[in-house]
Amino acid sequence: MSLPDATVHAVDRTAISRQVAHSYVDHLERRDWPGLAALLTDSVVYEMPQTRERIHGVDAFLRFNIEYPGHWQLRIRRVVADGNLAALWLDVRVDVEQQDACVWLEVSEHGLINKIVDYWPASYDPPLGREHLVERW
Amino acid sequence: MSLPDATVHAVDRTAISRQVAHSYVDHLERRDWPGLAALLTDSVVYEMPQTRERIHGVDAFLRFNIEYPGHWQLRIRRVVADGNLAALWLDVRVDVEQQDACVWLEVSEHGLINKIVDYWPASYDPPLGREHLVERW
Repeated sequence: MSLPDATVHAVDRTAISRQVAHSYVDHLERRDWPGLAALLTDSVVYEMPQTRERIHGVDAFLRFNIEYPGHWQLRIRRVVADGNLAALWLDVRVDVEQQDACVWLEVSEHGLINKIVDYWPASYDPPLGREHLVERW
Repeated sequence: MSLPDATVHAVDRTAISRQVAHSYVDHLERRDWPGLAALLTDSVVYEMPQTRERIHGVDAFLRFNIEYPGHWQLRIRRVVADGNLAALWLDVRVDVEQQDACVWLEVSEHGLINKIVDYWPASYDPPLGREHLVERW
């Protein structure tokens, strides 16, 4: 069985992106700032589209995490990796609050994260009118 | 160049999941309900964790979409596919409102979607105290 070289290359990139995604969460969770920095390009960009906030560069991004208030804990619910991309579905606890996060990563050709986009979807009450179709948990 | 059969199988599954993810959005956008139904298992489960709502089965899921209020339009920002999983990052317009969505798909061994988890992260004002690290857009 053989595959074209382009496919083999994509499989390799996918494996690297998957590993980087796991390491990203692991280093954040352990507050291993040098380890985290080693996963990022110097010019990494971090975006939170819900607040239209953007952070440029590894130093400011580390500072953002170091200063982030509360005792936060991260657990991976799912990693989906594909070539130079990865998507992370996280279970986040900040003190006693639980929230899920959706994170979109881009990985450079050298295997470093160069773009992070974070979504923090909050809980809300469902609109009326669809009770006949849904169950609640 | 050769790869183990398990890797080849994963590449095939990834290609199927990627195609199914694209088709899912395309059929939703075109309100092609028979076409959408053909992508789903009969027992598909749809979840919205933010409201803790769950819909069971293809009939209820189609009804939910058919009855969904407003003129909504979907555009794919990113697809990340990995084996039997796919993650979709969408740009959604409902009437004049714009919102991004993060969607997590699971694809059966027969290439049909059997689980959909939707997040609808809303805009909010950033907390004070990190203005020194961020730019706004």
